[in-house]
Amino acid sequence: MNLAGEGRDLSTMLRPRSIALVGATDRSGWSKATFANLTTLGYDGEVHLVARRGGVVHGRTSATSCAALGAKVDLGLLMVPAASIEEAIADLGAAGGRNAVILTSGFAETGTDGAAQQQRLAVLARRFNISILGPNCLGFVNFLDNVPLWTGAIRAPSRPGPIAVISQSGATAAFIASLALQQAIGLSHMISTGNEADLDSASFVDHLLDDARVRAIAMFIESIRDPHAFAAAAQKACAAGKPIVALKIGLSDVTARSAQAHTGSLVGDDRVFDGVCRQFGIVRVNSIEDLLFTADIIARTGVIGEKGLGLVSVSGGACEIAADRLQTEGVPLPPLPAATETALRSVLPSFGTPHNPLDITGGAVLEPELFRRALTIIGHEPAFSALACLFDVPGTEALATEFQLASLRQISAGLNEQPLPALMISHSLKPVTEVTQRIVSELNLPYVSAGIYHGLAALGRAWWWSEQQRRVAMHWAPPPVLQAPSPWPKTERAVLDHLARHGVPIVPATLVSDEASAAAAARASGGPVVLKIASVDIQHKSDIGGVALNVAGDAAVGAAFRRVMAAAPAGAQVDGVLVSPMRERGVELFVGCTRDPQWGPVLAVGLGGIFVELLQDVALRVLPVTPDEVRRMLGELKGAKMLRGQRGVPAADLDAVAQAIARIGDASVALGSSLDALDVNPLWVRGSEVEALDGLALARTA
Amino acid sequence: MNLAGEGRDLSTMLRPRSIALVGATDRSGWSKATFANLTTLGYDGEVHLVARRGGVVHGRTSATSCAALGAKVDLGLLMVPAASIEEAIADLGAAGGRNAVILTSGFAETGTDGAAQQQRLAVLARRFNISILGPNCLGFVNFLDNVPLWTGAIRAPSRPGPIAVISQSGATAAFIASLALQQAIGLSHMISTGNEADLDSASFVDHLLDDARVRAIAMFIESIRDPHAFAAAAQKACAAGKPIVALKIGLSDVTARSAQAHTGSLVGDDRVFDGVCRQFGIVRVNSIEDLLFTADIIARTGVIGEKGLGLVSVSGGACEIAADRLQTEGVPLPPLPAATETALRSVLPSFGTPHNPLDITGGAVLEPELFRRALTIIGHEPAFSALACLFDVPGTEALATEFQLASLRQISAGLNEQPLPALMISHSLKPVTEVTQRIVSELNLPYVSAGIYHGLAALGRAWWWSEQQRRVAMHWAPPPVLQAPSPWPKTERAVLDHLARHGVPIVPATLVSDEASAAAAARASGGPVVLKIASVDIQHKSDIGGVALNVAGDAAVGAAFRRVMAAAPAGAQVDGVLVSPMRERGVELFVGCTRDPQWGPVLAVGLGGIFVELLQDVALRVLPVTPDEVRRMLGELKGAKMLRGQRGVPAADLDAVAQAIARIGDASVALGSSLDALDVNPLWVRGSEVEALDGLALARTA
Repeated sequence: MNLAGEGRDLSTMLRPRSIALVGATDRSGWSKATFANLTTLGYDGEVHLVARRGGVVHGRTSATSCAALGAKVDLGLLMVPAASIEEAIADLGAAGGRNAVILTSGFAETGTDGAAQQQRLAVLARRFNISILGPNCLGFVNFLDNVPLWTGAIRAPSRPGPIAVISQSGATAAFIASLALQQAIGLSHMISTGNEADLDSASFVDHLLDDARVRAIAMFIESIRDPHAFAAAAQKACAAGKPIVALKIGLSDVTARSAQAHTGSLVGDDRVFDGVCRQFGIVRVNSIEDLLFTADIIARTGVIGEKGLGLVSVSGGACEIAADRLQTEGVPLPPLPAATETALRSVLPSFGTPHNPLDITGGAVLEPELFRRALTIIGHEPAFSALACLFDVPGTEALATEFQLASLRQISAGLNEQPLPALMISHSLKPVTEVTQRIVSELNLPYVSAGIYHGLAALGRAWWWSEQQRRVAMHWAPPPVLQAPSPWPKTERAVLDHLARHGVPIVPATLVSDEASAAAAARASGGPVVLKIASVDIQHKSDIGGVALNVAGDAAVGAAFRRVMAAAPAGAQVDGVLVSPMRERGVELFVGCTRDPQWGPVLAVGLGGIFVELLQDVALRVLPVTPDEVRRMLGELKGAKMLRGQRGVPAADLDAVAQAIARIGDASVALGSSLDALDVNPLWVRGSEVEALDGLALARTA
Repeated sequence: MNLAGEGRDLSTMLRPRSIALVGATDRSGWSKATFANLTTLGYDGEVHLVARRGGVVHGRTSATSCAALGAKVDLGLLMVPAASIEEAIADLGAAGGRNAVILTSGFAETGTDGAAQQQRLAVLARRFNISILGPNCLGFVNFLDNVPLWTGAIRAPSRPGPIAVISQSGATAAFIASLALQQAIGLSHMISTGNEADLDSASFVDHLLDDARVRAIAMFIESIRDPHAFAAAAQKACAAGKPIVALKIGLSDVTARSAQAHTGSLVGDDRVFDGVCRQFGIVRVNSIEDLLFTADIIARTGVIGEKGLGLVSVSGGACEIAADRLQTEGVPLPPLPAATETALRSVLPSFGTPHNPLDITGGAVLEPELFRRALTIIGHEPAFSALACLFDVPGTEALATEFQLASLRQISAGLNEQPLPALMISHSLKPVTEVTQRIVSELNLPYVSAGIYHGLAALGRAWWWSEQQRRVAMHWAPPPVLQAPSPWPKTERAVLDHLARHGVPIVPATLVSDEASAAAAARASGGPVVLKIASVDIQHKSDIGGVALNVAGDAAVGAAFRRVMAAAPAGAQVDGVLVSPMRERGVELFVGCTRDPQWGPVLAVGLGGIFVELLQDVALRVLPVTPDEVRRMLGELKGAKMLRGQRGVPAADLDAVAQAIARIGDASVALGSSLDALDVNPLWVRGSEVEALDGLALARTA
C-alpha cells in the first residue's frame, strides 16, 4: 500500500512561490494557456520558462533547463514528451524543486508499458523527494491564493469560496468549474489528479481539510486508487464536520464477479462504493449539478437538526411540487402546531390557510410584508430545524420590478432574523448573473439558484449528512492481515466451529454415524430435528438430497438417516450425519463476506430468500464493522420490516442480530488473505434467539 | 360526467378578434399588466375597457358595460368581484361574447359555498352559451397568434415554438414559461386553467392537438377534473404522435384509503395516476426542468427507433457520467460493431480507443475534424437509432473561442449529415443567451442545453414514449355502468362462480356437509386437498382456523372436516365445507379490483406474499384492460422474474395469465357501481395452468 501524500506537506505544491513551465513553447496551446493564466489572473510568484533550445517563448527569454535558471523553483509544470519526463524530473530536483505537475500523457492509461513507465516515474520522484500531480492531468487552480496553474482556458471566478473540487478527469473538473461560475458558487481549489502516479485524490482531501477556508469537498471519482487512504480522509472529514460530496462513475460498469459463492454476484465495485459512502458519511450524488449544489448548501448550513423543514412560498403549485420532492428526498415537513396556525391566521389573507408548506398566497403582491411575518413566525417555531422560502432573484434589471425587490427585502429580513439555517431557493435552476449577484449581495440573501428539484435534493442530502454527523465517532481501520487458519474450515461443521470461536452463536449439532445415535441425538434435542450429511466433499447438500428437515420420532429419524447417507455420491468421504434441532417461525438472514479486489473483506447482509436472490436487497460495508454499523445496515434493507415481527414471529432483537453479524465479520477477517467468501445462510433469528444454521467458507484458488 | 369542451370550438377563445377587460381599473396590478401585455406585445385585435363607473382607465375611455360598447366582443376578461360575476356574464352574453376568462378567485377553492357559487356560474355560462376559462386563473398566452391575455408581467419569447403549456396553477405556468425563456425553448401556448368551472385541461389538450403547429403538450396537473375526457385526450395525442408530458403533484398526499379489502391500501391517487400514465402513454416527470426538456426533445426527435444511442464526447469523464445516466434511464448503448471500430480506429489518435460512448480525446483540440468524422461513422452505423454529441455552446462572445467554434462547425456537420435523430447536449444545464442563440442558429445546431443529467433523462423518456407509439393502437373507453348482480356474491363460492361466468378459470370445489362426503370428494380429486369452511358470515377463514391445507387420506380428511367445522363461531350460518384439490409448486399472484373515486374501477396486479404486502409491488390500470395491457403490467413488477420459472416451477404462460386477469377485470366491472373491491388472492399459476383459488367481493356500504 502506497500512502501517497502521508507525512508530506502539500502547501508548496498548492502555493508555490516560483513556477517553471518546463517544455514551454509557442506551438503548444497548453503552454500558452498556462502562461496566460499565470501572468493575467493575479499569481504573484515568479514564473520561469524552460525550453530545451532556449530562446524567446511567450515573449520572454527561456532557460534551457531548471538548473540553468539559477533560481530555486518550488514547482515545475512538465509538458515535455513522455520519453523526456525522467530527465525533466532529475533537472527539476537539481534546481531544488519539490513539486511536479505533469501534463504529459501516455502512461498507465495506455496499457502495461505505460504503467511500468509510470511506476518508474513514481520511484524517481521519491528518490528526488519530489511530489507529483499527474501525469495526464490538466493542473490545478488555487483560487484562494491565486495560483491558476491550469493548462486550459479558465475564467477567473467572481470570488473564491469554500468549496474544493478534486477530479481525476481534467475536462470534468473544467465542466464543474464552469457550472460553479455560472451559478456563482465560490470555489477554493480545482485540482485535476490525472493518473495519480504519486499524489492521489485522498492526499489532497487530507491536506485541504486542514485549511479553515475550505468548508466542503466536491469530488469526481473514476476509481479509488488507495481505499484505505480514502477511508482515512473520509473519517477526518467527518471529524472536521466538512462534507465530502462525491460523483463517482461505475454504475454501468458493474462487473458481477464470478465468485463461486453467493456473495460474489451481489457485490460489484459500484455497490461496494455505495456501501463505503454510507459507512464513512460520504454524500454520493449522480450529476454535476447535484455535486455543486449539495456542497454549496452543506457549506452554508452546516449540521441541520433532525426535526424538519418549514417552507414558505407565494404559490400553491410550488408548495405542492416542493412537498412531493421533500418526501422523495427524505426531508420531514412537520405539521404546524396549533399555536403557530393561529399566529399565521392573523397575518394571512382571509383566503389563505396555514399549512406547512405555507402558501402565503398572491396577497403578497399587495402586501410583501407577508413574507417576513410568515417567515418570522415559522422560523421561531420549535417544531422546525431549518427554514426555506421559494422565490427567484431577477437576472436582469428589467426583471427587477418593485414587487420583486420589495418581496426580496422582506424575505431577506424574514430569513436572516431567526435562529435556524435558512435558504431562499429558486423555482427552477437559474444562472446567477451580475445583476443577480448584486441584488443577493445588497439584500444579504441566502440564495440557492438550484431550483426546487436540485435545491431540495441537495437539502435532502444535507439532512442525511447531518444525521451522519450525529453518529458515534468512527474509528475504522483496515483489518490486520492474518494467516489463514490451518486447516481451512472445509465442512459445514468446521465453519460453524470457526464462527463459534469468534463469538457467533451457532445451532447445536451432534455428529452421528448410525441410526441409533441419530435417534438418541434427536430425542435429546427435545423436538423435531434436521439431519444433514457431513462430508468434506459435499458443498451443496440440499441439491443432492443430503438434508432432511423437520423430522420427529425414532422411526422417521432412522429413515431420514438412511436417506441422507444414501445421497452421498460414490467416493465421497463421509464423516457421518449432523443432527440439529429444527429452527422455524423465525426470520432468515443471509450474511456473506467476500473479498473486494480493492477494499479487501466486504460484508453483505440481507433477508434470505427472494430478498437476496431476486431483489438483490443487500447492505454492504467494508470490514471490520461495529454492531452499531450493522444496525444501520439492517435499517437500509427494503425487507427491514420483516424483522419487526409478524404472525407468529416475534420482532427480532436487533442488538443481538447486529452483534452476531459483526462477529461473523470478525470471523471472516480471521480467515486471512485466503478468504474468498464466508457465507452464513441462513442466520436464523427469532426474537432474541440468533443462530447460524449453516456456513460455507471458500479459499482463494489463485 | 361533464364533458366540458366537447363539441365546442375553442378557436375564438384562444384567438379572439376583440377582447373586453371587464372591471378594468388603474388600481389593479392585474388590470394594468393585462392591458400592457395586449397593447405592447403585438396583439392585433381590438381591446375594450369596461368599468362600472366608466371614465378614463389606463389612459383610454372605458364603457360602463359590454352591452354599452356597441361592438361585438369575442372574449371578456372578468376581473370584477365574485359577487358581480354573474351580472358580468349576463352582460358579456348580451354583447355577443362567447368566451370568458375569469381572474376572480373566491370560488371552489374556498369551500362549500364557493363551490356552489362556481356551479351556478357554470350553469349560467351554459345558458348564455359562453365558454369559461377559470375562475381563479391568470389567463393565457397564445404565442403563435400573439394573444398575450395574461394578468401578470410576462416577457415576450424570442420566438414561439411547438410546445403548449397547460397548467392548473397560474404561478406555476409562469415559472415554466420563465424557464422556457431562459432555455430558449419555444412555446405555442401557456394556459392557466384555474378552478376549471367549465373548460378543463383536457378540453385544451383536445383542441390543441388539432393545431399542426403544436407538437408536444406539457402539463402541470394538480388534479384531473374529468378522468374520462383526460383519457380520451391522451388517446388522441397517442394517435396524433404528439407527446403529453405531465408534472403531477400528489405523491406526498397519498391518502391510503380505508377499504376493508387488501387492494385499498395499495391504491392511492398518485399510484393510480402513475398507472394511467403507463396505460395511455403519458410521459410523467417530476420537475419543471424535466417537463420542458422532455417536451422539447420529443418535439424535435419524434419517434426514436428502439436500437440504441451512439454517443460522442471529447471527455472520457463525460462519457462515463453519461453511460451511467443512460443505464439508469433505460437507453441502450449498443457496443460498436467490429467494422465500425476499425473505421473509427483509422480516424482516432493513436491513444484513443473506439467504444460506445466514444471519447474522441483531447486530440480534437488540434483536429476538430475528428468530431465530424466520428459522428459520420457512428451516424451511419445501423446498430444505432439515435445519435448524440456532448458539447457546450458558449454563452458570451469571450467564450466563443476559435476552438469552440471550429468544433461546433464540425459537430453540426456531423450531426446534420446523417439519417438518425441527432442532438448536441451540454455538459451541465446552461442558459441559452443571445450569443448562444446566434451561434446555434448560424451553425444549425440541434442543441439541447439541459446538461447530461436532464438531457439524458429526457432522452430516456423519449425512448419510453417511442416504445408506446409502437404499441397496438388503444381503444379504451370507460366501462358501462352496470347493475350490481342480485344477490351479491357474498361467499367465496359465489365469488368464484361469478368469476367463472366471466371466463376466469377457477379451482374446482365440492361443497360437502359430512365427513363421508368430504372423504369421497377428496378421493375423487385424486390428490391432497384443501378444506375450507363455507359460510356467508366468515370472511377471513384462515384467521379462525377455518382452512385445512394439504390433507390426504380418508382419516385425515375426516379429522380436518371436524376441525374446520368446529372453527365456526357460534351463530354463524354454515353451508358446509368446500373440498378442492391442493395446488402447489406454482406462483401465486394477487389480483385486486377496487373503485377509485375518480377513475372508477381500477385493477391492481402483483406477486403474492411479501411482494404485495411488504414491497407494495403492484401494477395498476383503470378498467377495462386488454390481455395485452396486462402483459405490460406483469412486465413492470419487480417480482416479474418469479414468473420465469425456478426450481420445480415451470415458467408461467403469460398469455394465459394475462387472459385470466383481464377476465377478472371484466368480472369486476360486472359488479356494477356497487363494487368496493374484488380480490382474487391467490391466482395460482403453474405453466399454462391458471386458477383463481379464492375470491372476495365487497359491496359499497354507503
